[in-house]
Amino acid sequence: MIVVMKIGSSQDEAGGVVKRIEEIGLKAHLSQGVEHTVIGVLGQTFPELQDMLQMLPGVEDVIPVSKPYKIASREFHPENSIVRVNGLAIGGDEVVIMAGPCAVESQEQLLATAQEVKAAGANILRGGAFKPSTSPYHFRGLGLEGLKMLVKAREETGMPFVTEVMAPGDVESVARYADIVQIGTRNMQNFALLDEVGKLRKPVMLKRGLSSTIQEWLLAAEYILSQGNEQLILCERGIRTFETATRNTIDISAIPVIKRLSHLPIIADPSHGTGKWYLVSPMALAAVAAGADGLMIEVHPNPDLALKDGPQSLTFDNFRRLMSRLAPVAQAMDRKLATTGAKVKS
Amino acid sequence: MIVVMKIGSSQDEAGGVVKRIEEIGLKAHLSQGVEHTVIGVLGQTFPELQDMLQMLPGVEDVIPVSKPYKIASREFHPENSIVRVNGLAIGGDEVVIMAGPCAVESQEQLLATAQEVKAAGANILRGGAFKPSTSPYHFRGLGLEGLKMLVKAREETGMPFVTEVMAPGDVESVARYADIVQIGTRNMQNFALLDEVGKLRKPVMLKRGLSSTIQEWLLAAEYILSQGNEQLILCERGIRTFETATRNTIDISAIPVIKRLSHLPIIADPSHGTGKWYLVSPMALAAVAAGADGLMIEVHPNPDLALKDGPQSLTFDNFRRLMSRLAPVAQAMDRKLATTGAKVKS
Amino acid sequence: MIVVMKIGSSQDEAGGVVKRIEEIGLKAHLSQGVEHTVIGVLGQTFPELQDMLQMLPGVEDVIPVSKPYKIASREFHPENSIVRVNGLAIGGDEVVIMAGPCAVESQEQLLATAQEVKAAGANILRGGAFKPSTSPYHFRGLGLEGLKMLVKAREETGMPFVTEVMAPGDVESVARYADIVQIGTRNMQNFALLDEVGKLRKPVMLKRGLSSTIQEWLLAAEYILSQGNEQLILCERGIRTFETATRNTIDISAIPVIKRLSHLPIIADPSHGTGKWYLVSPMALAAVAAGADGLMIEVHPNPDLALKDGPQSLTFDNFRRLMSRLAPVAQAMDRKLATTGAKVKS
Amino acid sequence: MIVVMKIGSSQDEAGGVVKRIEEIGLKAHLSQGVEHTVIGVLGQTFPELQDMLQMLPGVEDVIPVSKPYKIASREFHPENSIVRVNGLAIGGDEVVIMAGPCAVESQEQLLATAQEVKAAGANILRGGAFKPSTSPYHFRGLGLEGLKMLVKAREETGMPFVTEVMAPGDVESVARYADIVQIGTRNMQNFALLDEVGKLRKPVMLKRGLSSTIQEWLLAAEYILSQGNEQLILCERGIRTFETATRNTIDISAIPVIKRLSHLPIIADPSHGTGKWYLVSPMALAAVAAGADGLMIEVHPNPDLALKDGPQSLTFDNFRRLMSRLAPVAQAMDRKLATTGAKVKS
Repeated sequence: MIVVMKIGSSQDEAGGVVKRIEEIGLKAHLSQGVEHTVIGVLGQTFPELQDMLQMLPGVEDVIPVSKPYKIASREFHPENSIVRVNGLAIGGDEVVIMAGPCAVESQEQLLATAQEVKAAGANILRGGAFKPSTSPYHFRGLGLEGLKMLVKAREETGMPFVTEVMAPGDVESVARYADIVQIGTRNMQNFALLDEVGKLRKPVMLKRGLSSTIQEWLLAAEYILSQGNEQLILCERGIRTFETATRNTIDISAIPVIKRLSHLPIIADPSHGTGKWYLVSPMALAAVAAGADGLMIEVHPNPDLALKDGPQSLTFDNFRRLMSRLAPVAQAMDRKLATTGAKVKS
Repeated sequence: MIVVMKIGSSQDEAGGVVKRIEEIGLKAHLSQGVEHTVIGVLGQTFPELQDMLQMLPGVEDVIPVSKPYKIASREFHPENSIVRVNGLAIGGDEVVIMAGPCAVESQEQLLATAQEVKAAGANILRGGAFKPSTSPYHFRGLGLEGLKMLVKAREETGMPFVTEVMAPGDVESVARYADIVQIGTRNMQNFALLDEVGKLRKPVMLKRGLSSTIQEWLLAAEYILSQGNEQLILCERGIRTFETATRNTIDISAIPVIKRLSHLPIIADPSHGTGKWYLVSPMALAAVAAGADGLMIEVHPNPDLALKDGPQSLTFDNFRRLMSRLAPVAQAMDRKLATTGAKVKS
Repeated sequence: MIVVMKIGSSQDEAGGVVKRIEEIGLKAHLSQGVEHTVIGVLGQTFPELQDMLQMLPGVEDVIPVSKPYKIASREFHPENSIVRVNGLAIGGDEVVIMAGPCAVESQEQLLATAQEVKAAGANILRGGAFKPSTSPYHFRGLGLEGLKMLVKAREETGMPFVTEVMAPGDVESVARYADIVQIGTRNMQNFALLDEVGKLRKPVMLKRGLSSTIQEWLLAAEYILSQGNEQLILCERGIRTFETATRNTIDISAIPVIKRLSHLPIIADPSHGTGKWYLVSPMALAAVAAGADGLMIEVHPNPDLALKDGPQSLTFDNFRRLMSRLAPVAQAMDRKLATTGAKVKS
Repeated sequence: MIVVMKIGSSQDEAGGVVKRIEEIGLKAHLSQGVEHTVIGVLGQTFPELQDMLQMLPGVEDVIPVSKPYKIASREFHPENSIVRVNGLAIGGDEVVIMAGPCAVESQEQLLATAQEVKAAGANILRGGAFKPSTSPYHFRGLGLEGLKMLVKAREETGMPFVTEVMAPGDVESVARYADIVQIGTRNMQNFALLDEVGKLRKPVMLKRGLSSTIQEWLLAAEYILSQGNEQLILCERGIRTFETATRNTIDISAIPVIKRLSHLPIIADPSHGTGKWYLVSPMALAAVAAGADGLMIEVHPNPDLALKDGPQSLTFDNFRRLMSRLAPVAQAMDRKLATTGAKVKS
């Protein structure tokens, strides 16, 4: 941490900063510039220190030079982390495809979709049982009943599934059924929920908050990691901007940024990221070209009858077409589409 | 709801839309424009309908013309709602001032602050016991112990207090102690938490989400109202924009927008809204001039020693100076600063 | 400027940075932290230096600690600057009101509006002759003919006028007629235009760009000031955010931020800032409470017949009502509404 | 255009709207909903009409249902437009690569870069002679001298070049030298400049404004097209968001959105789009996977010595590496890298 003193600040003021730093048990190193006096803080700093020093008389700015997250950082863990699910390795050479309906609506809808996406090459089934809804009057999911339908679909198809949990009190029961527990965008900073899934010892997928910086996202990841759960996957799903042609602006550049800052696997959700079915395939291809470890794609037997997010769901035909385009793009990136899981069973 | 058909769409496609509308039990009214065929939907629509109709062949756009919230709307309740706390009327003619430290740090810090802000004219004490923190390594509040310090401060000063709840499981205990239960910005769409505080029968203050539209905010309010809790106060606290000179951009215009769309009281939090103590007073004055029903101001005995948010906290002196400026501005707006509560006790 | 070296960077890398700094003719001061080596740059730096040093091997970050603008800064000019127009002092104790139609449409429309706003207390007439339009098919203003109508209105009412210039080639003719030359939001970084108005020796009003940070705005001001034109007024007019309830989000906090960073006068335009006539008065009052030196308000005889921006224009009645509310708010802020100009003539 | 009347509005108010529509020479079609009366406007509407009708008593909302741009729309021109430059076809099957330094700094720097990028497979040379700079104290380009260096580089390498024009008065001279005239992000709504390049009969590249919606971008394109210049290329270069890990957020989804709405070719500039050299290659690959017709890449012999934008420039080595990765991704998309131009000469 570096403290920059104001132009014209007094020696006493600099002395006051040094004194405060030493009271806390750290060392200070004072450097006299032509314009500014600069004080380096030596020793293990902590985030509150920035605010504290900021307030002292004569201080212009306090600049943290270490990243505020540790376990999530690539410095801490230089190799890529790999999260294993049912024989799949997420974060390795293979690109993993999660697909299924936005919401579980019925056993038939779910099963039909699961069978189709598996046949087309998907590795993991997605489906929401507990659904966040902007309005209290919207469909909020089938809850526990939906979870059981997902279990049934897993039994029938052999595909593991990912599903969202929205309340700390539901973590235990969702984790009992699901293969991957998802934290949705609105809950990225629901710290009570992060603590709870951090206590699990099974894979968690953490979606980026709608208006979260990448640093805030990695700090949310740090909540989970610091509770001891290292089976963590990140998911870029679009951020809120001024643009209205798309539901969100999917930040494809977040993929290589995360790869540089962190060792965690990262996948992309072009369905929520764009909100338009006709943008899902181009953005899925772009995400893989940018280095994504996987994709999460919404597929529905009849998007025009879907209870949630029909406009961003692919039909079976469109999903098959996407899968056939994905393979050569993955190959061009020296990767391939994962086949474990699906293949093992069929 | 209005369905606009594409240029060149067929009569059959329009017929398909009409058929779907009628299947759902609603009526359709077809109108042939020069460029577009337009179909009005007659009867009580529901939000999912927009997505459903959007997907039908030949449809260009589906436009909802009713607001998606009901109980929160001014149409539903034309008069201003008033929330009563300890003899104070929030949402009436008087401007109510909530003040205190960001976080409860100790009984002495809290009590000293409570006495000072009361003497300066504040009506309600604020103080965080459960604190959201972007980093797992930051101070996260004193929890239950902090709540008890707030109770003690209330006993000593007679001031009611407002404090945040962050998890559904804590709602009952926070509500037992607090006079107003606060939902913080990160939890505006924590629907499990909204459901829980909706079941209370005591005042709730709902902060605007960091990147929430006003419509989403009113829908979050609708969650609470639709559970039967009508004692609801909104709080504007800044939105996330590209600007970096301030911590957030406080959206002062949200105050008259809310007044037009809704009957709910609205206050402003210029401390979080700006993140800089030297902007708190100008924004507090601006909020009252724009029609705010109250303010929430962070005050700390020694902002440079604060564990949380020192840079945005006022000293006792600065708070007194603000209060003396607020009175004439309130008067210029034909309002006055509330005196109930504080006065009753001193 | 401060260079922070990466954890684990070598002594040679630090030596390379020091060498480069010295080659440029500056001095380097190396300070060894526990985690990071930090190198302070001593002497007069320049903005490109940040990019240059950033690229050197082993460098983690380069932090500029001086502001990039000089003449616009309060350090350079501690007292408030005052811009004088026709006996009015913009930036002093008085609050100056500019009012008139968005676009000059006809001599009658302009004259009727000028007489009304003057009678209600406005000091300066506004009216667009050259109009920016998002679409090439919209009304783009009356041009030179509109300028002449503004001159005529000035002769009849004695009010000075402000009007926009959009192209470097028009600066001379607009400046010949206008009392204040306006640079619109879309042209805040039209550097050829800034250079041109910087060569004038008459008042310029520089609107904030739709997505400009305050620092970029002050750098645009620096373009004008550095050409020798010190008669510069800033105008906050709303920034682009995700919110759709308003046309823009008016950043009221920019007013005290500018007052702290700069000596330049700042006014607010709540008409463009909100895009809704019913938000203009609350935001005008808020701006004055926040310390604005003036306001720019769109007024139209028949907003529903306006060729441009009718929805954000006040009727004569609403403008009179606003003026009667503004006076006590200005007074509560120890200021008063300007009367020079208008008074001189009536 | 559709006018939605307020709940509870009177028959007289609806009559007033119908009357106004008919006065303008259009027809009105009134449709009585259960909640809302809706009035369709028949005939050729114009954009100002929305504002006009919005203001009438009893009107809730006015919804335009036609796109505001015509010539730029795919409805107007269903096939892809192709812009031809020196034997290259931009917008066809081949992916065109523009590369070179951000700014022309010297004849040697430019020539060395041109030869290298050509050898690596680039088709068009880029280089700024007139440079926009946020600060008046930054390097603003070599101007006319820089243009002549570009001409010399073209003579030596046979590569056509693209360069920016910033002022209407410079359009003629820039167009005399350049093969493609670029409008930069800050000038996307510099309407005087758009008019000027619209009068040219040579290729123009229009960058997206930093905070422009896609609709505003297509309207800016419409300015140029409506002046008769149909040789227009769009360039996505990142938008301004809250994220600070990147200089801008490159909106990869804009590529398929533009392809759907318009027939114009679209390329991507991952250098400005990210501001970080290590993100340029992943985003270049992503853009091609998303359907971009080309790329614009900043390359510099010594990025750490660059006068502008070094941190986002590729070294020669990194550019060659990118080109070798691009070819298989293009192939996976059933396209190939363009070879005309470069090949012709070598």
